[in-house]
Amino acid sequence: MNTYSPRLARLIEALRKLPGVGPKSAQRMAFHLLDRDRRAAEQLGLALNEALSGIGRCPSCRMFCEDAACRYCSPARRAAGQLCVVETPADLMAIDAATSYRGRYFVLMGRLSPLDGVGPEELGLAALQALLDDGSVQEMIVATNPTVEGEATAYYLAEMGKAAGIKVSRIAHGVPMGGELEYVDGGTLAHALSGRTPV
Amino acid sequence: MNTYSPRLARLIEALRKLPGVGPKSAQRMAFHLLDRDRRAAEQLGLALNEALSGIGRCPSCRMFCEDAACRYCSPARRAAGQLCVVETPADLMAIDAATSYRGRYFVLMGRLSPLDGVGPEELGLAALQALLDDGSVQEMIVATNPTVEGEATAYYLAEMGKAAGIKVSRIAHGVPMGGELEYVDGGTLAHALSGRTPV
Repeated sequence: MNTYSPRLARLIEALRKLPGVGPKSAQRMAFHLLDRDRRAAEQLGLALNEALSGIGRCPSCRMFCEDAACRYCSPARRAAGQLCVVETPADLMAIDAATSYRGRYFVLMGRLSPLDGVGPEELGLAALQALLDDGSVQEMIVATNPTVEGEATAYYLAEMGKAAGIKVSRIAHGVPMGGELEYVDGGTLAHALSGRTPV
Repeated sequence: MNTYSPRLARLIEALRKLPGVGPKSAQRMAFHLLDRDRRAAEQLGLALNEALSGIGRCPSCRMFCEDAACRYCSPARRAAGQLCVVETPADLMAIDAATSYRGRYFVLMGRLSPLDGVGPEELGLAALQALLDDGSVQEMIVATNPTVEGEATAYYLAEMGKAAGIKVSRIAHGVPMGGELEYVDGGTLAHALSGRTPV
């Protein structure tokens, strides 16, 4: 319905590809960049080019990596003997920022989901197997999401770990801190009760 | 708290400059672009460069314009003898898409707001005066927003139009279509009653 001029249309179309951005937001962003913040637009263009050319994947942990040596695969982290398996880079960042965990990570970049065509190969589980087999890992912490697919993935990973003779643990699921029992959903409450720990 | 690698940090910082994007959304966007849609990132970079180099302002209506001849200042629109004054390019697009109005526009790129240092000069009212004085405009339609500043701007514009001997009209304010009287705020209802039209 709206007839944008060609360059404006292409900019709005490109902004719409960002997650969570619809046609209205994309138009707002484009007008904001063109009208009020051309410097920000320039910087965004530069940052995108720089990121695309410079950010790759660490072959070992599959996290984004832009240096020769991945910061999450440093010898110090290797020495910890722990490997935390997460679904996404955002999960890795969240755990690294909020916890004192300083071992290594392995980023699946997804979860097992046969219906969507995501199998062990897509998750790079061969690379994980190689990590488990090289003798540097004593404990594998499975930190996939507590969804159906995340749980299935966790089960698969646990089997892999056990086959390699490695201790496997799963992050705890239960009532979130600050949550009120009254308002917590039944599934979480059932998990919290069955996963109770001695005090 | 989060320690991103330098390029990733710059990309996230640049994305945060977009309106309505906070640190979490920016991280999500960056990871999405790097992980799942590098082609979209490339296109966004290209579109930004293209837009920055190619999209300027029409000297007459102040709308974004990338061709030698502004599409909103065509001779056909000029012939209509009407000039619609709006605050932003988005307002222009909304009116042009939703209504049958096919006259010219003038985009203020803001509204009078002395506290924020926005006076007649910042809104390009000298250019508007020139338009009013050249004899091509019979009617000026003031379509600023019904906010305090928008109303003040409308009053100022009306004075300008009257001084130039031009018919000035203001878009109607009242109960929105599909709205229910019961839930419409008092100010709108008062406007709707005082602005009643004979049927």
